[in-house]
Amino acid sequence: MGYSEFMIEGRNAVLEALRSGKSIDRLYVFDGAHDNALGSILKEVKKHPECKLTFVKKEKLDELSETGKHQGVAAVCAAYEYCEIEDILRKAEEKGEPPFVIILDGIEDPHNLGAIIRTANLAGAHGVIIRFDRAVGLTATVAKASAGALNYTPVAKVTNINDTIKKLKDRGLWFVCADMDGETMYKLNLKGPIGLVIGNEGKGVSPLVKKNCDFVASIPMKGDIDSLNASVAAGVMAFEIVRQRLS
Amino acid sequence: MGYSEFMIEGRNAVLEALRSGKSIDRLYVFDGAHDNALGSILKEVKKHPECKLTFVKKEKLDELSETGKHQGVAAVCAAYEYCEIEDILRKAEEKGEPPFVIILDGIEDPHNLGAIIRTANLAGAHGVIIRFDRAVGLTATVAKASAGALNYTPVAKVTNINDTIKKLKDRGLWFVCADMDGETMYKLNLKGPIGLVIGNEGKGVSPLVKKNCDFVASIPMKGDIDSLNASVAAGVMAFEIVRQRLS
Repeated sequence: MGYSEFMIEGRNAVLEALRSGKSIDRLYVFDGAHDNALGSILKEVKKHPECKLTFVKKEKLDELSETGKHQGVAAVCAAYEYCEIEDILRKAEEKGEPPFVIILDGIEDPHNLGAIIRTANLAGAHGVIIRFDRAVGLTATVAKASAGALNYTPVAKVTNINDTIKKLKDRGLWFVCADMDGETMYKLNLKGPIGLVIGNEGKGVSPLVKKNCDFVASIPMKGDIDSLNASVAAGVMAFEIVRQRLS
Repeated sequence: MGYSEFMIEGRNAVLEALRSGKSIDRLYVFDGAHDNALGSILKEVKKHPECKLTFVKKEKLDELSETGKHQGVAAVCAAYEYCEIEDILRKAEEKGEPPFVIILDGIEDPHNLGAIIRTANLAGAHGVIIRFDRAVGLTATVAKASAGALNYTPVAKVTNINDTIKKLKDRGLWFVCADMDGETMYKLNLKGPIGLVIGNEGKGVSPLVKKNCDFVASIPMKGDIDSLNASVAAGVMAFEIVRQRLS
């Protein structure tokens, strides 16, 4: 499978991609253009909450363009398709295992996202859920850092983490987030259907997401600095879940 | 060590360096940034009479930056000094703890080395030992990825990992390396004075190093791909040692 993010350029191509329901990460539109074709694109993009729209100068588009024929519009797509939440739950069901989902509340570093998808795969998580805004999507760097895991572990992208948590709670999942002020993870029961929430590299888990979690778990820390790297913390927590599931 | 001067970049890394009392020669701050993180840095720098503070344009910071990720702040200081093995053992002795050392058998990626030093600090390891050849040293990228841990956790550099293991065995340490064909880590007794060996990102632990270890431990893997990211594997193993030490 090719590891690349690709660019769709030109008005018709971009409009067709949007209409076909393709998942588009970012859309760059020439700031200043006003015509019917662009109007249709802007109307269609409203149906794509995953798509981050940016108005740019012509120079920026020229620089981004691979074909040199962008006609004032260029879309960046993930090489990988995002899945639906249902696909993740179905995977757990097929394996006859209680669902284990890793939810990322705003991971920004593509190396961290890739490493976490890699960890999710090896810890036996059935999927990863990422946030659409202020977070990195499935870029080429992520694919590379996942060391192939992106071919096996489904990744869903949602607009509202809290809504997703509520829906998954209705499906029987319990939620635990990693936070310094939580209960030591060894003391919590992390067996059964579970969603593990990992926060942003700098800010941690958002207050509302934390409030919606059933448990707040901490990794016991002995050192002088504040926190582990986000992908390391995700790994340590995920394998604590593995340990409890094995015991 | 190859650097007479050393750049620390990024807000957390610079703030931690200042707080740890590290001697900083010059501090470059983006002229125009105003936020809490920079405020903390500017407050901390007042306690450092040795430090010359200069406000610069973004272009100047971009030019100075080695990592390209300065976040508006870069500090120039004396190079990080490698410690001696004895310094690591002394640190354990001072704390009245059985020695816990992380030995890296050829980590090449600076982000991995930084993340592992960060993990070592938080897992309560007394030091990290790295290999002199075919491995990354203490660069600016490593310092940034360590999120300040390099100011607290001593790092020794040795020419021969196997000789070092033998010497440390004479001092009472047991050695465990992470390898897929080992015994599940939960079944091993990892308490007491210990050296945790993590192998190269691609090749794993060298055959001779593996032979010199007392235990070969594996992380239970469920997935479709081969291995965890090296810094994640180091984190998962290090916190299994923490768990056993706590229990």
